[in-house]
Amino acid sequence: MKYEVRFSGTGGQGIIRCAVLLAEAALYDGYFAAQSQVYGPESRGGSSQGEVVIKDTPIYYPKVKVPDVLLCLSQEAYNKYAPDIAADGLLICDSDFVQPDGREGETVRVCRLPMLEVARDELKNELSANVLALGVLVGLTDVVSDAAVHKALANNFNSKLLPLNLQAYQRGFQMARGQADK
Amino acid sequence: MKYEVRFSGTGGQGIIRCAVLLAEAALYDGYFAAQSQVYGPESRGGSSQGEVVIKDTPIYYPKVKVPDVLLCLSQEAYNKYAPDIAADGLLICDSDFVQPDGREGETVRVCRLPMLEVARDELKNELSANVLALGVLVGLTDVVSDAAVHKALANNFNSKLLPLNLQAYQRGFQMARGQADK
Repeated sequence: MKYEVRFSGTGGQGIIRCAVLLAEAALYDGYFAAQSQVYGPESRGGSSQGEVVIKDTPIYYPKVKVPDVLLCLSQEAYNKYAPDIAADGLLICDSDFVQPDGREGETVRVCRLPMLEVARDELKNELSANVLALGVLVGLTDVVSDAAVHKALANNFNSKLLPLNLQAYQRGFQMARGQADK
Repeated sequence: MKYEVRFSGTGGQGIIRCAVLLAEAALYDGYFAAQSQVYGPESRGGSSQGEVVIKDTPIYYPKVKVPDVLLCLSQEAYNKYAPDIAADGLLICDSDFVQPDGREGETVRVCRLPMLEVARDELKNELSANVLALGVLVGLTDVVSDAAVHKALANNFNSKLLPLNLQAYQRGFQMARGQADK
């Protein structure tokens, strides 16, 4: 088993934290995981990306080659990374901020949800969009267990920030399941 | 130019955040940087490590092979990673929680400082030890500029947590410079 995920968006959206959370959750589920990001001059433009590789055997090469799942919270991130998705992969993008133009390929499953809007208007905290997006990803893929994500959240947020982030995760999870039912 | 850093300690010490901050600071200084961590069954025991590679050219392999600098905030981390340090490398370890036994090699420079104690007793927040340790590292090595670290801190902490973390960074920087003067 090998599962590759890339999170992408703009700086300040908590993209790397989101990747760290998924990698930690995978660990709690008994998998091996690698999490990485490479920073270059293009990052200074404000784009941000983080990668996670999940395997059931030790990982010697920690980079994502062909993502099974790509999350895009900005158009720039979509434009850059969408062509790399696996043919049977999943693209999750913000429905307000990303307009897919087909470059991900016809066989890729596309899920568009207003993640930034729900975080801002419903949860009253735009910074929780990253954890909401993680909930969407887990709700659609089941790549890690709900219990493992809860443990990772508890390990990464202090008691003051934890309730908001649990709520954001659960809201994202619900949005994904609602989507799947349609 | 290539510079490899490994941060290590126990879970909950903010080791990964510390590595992310250094990588971001390197970016602001105009370098390329890669930041990664691999999670396996041993991570479940409570140990934590994060890696940073800094170069002045693009990075295609993001893993640390022979660290120029190793930070250890726990004995377990020291025991595991100390033998890997470069012969002319630098070992930074907590003077209360790590007892070096020479396995880092005779040519390695060793800096022992009570980082966890100062964070707990002086800054009244043990969770700031990671950023204090980053200050020690930068104070000893100048691998990134002070301005770049400030920018990375501002980008990673909200306005409520930023003052404490700036203070922790500066305290660590001072401790390193005091050490260097002795």
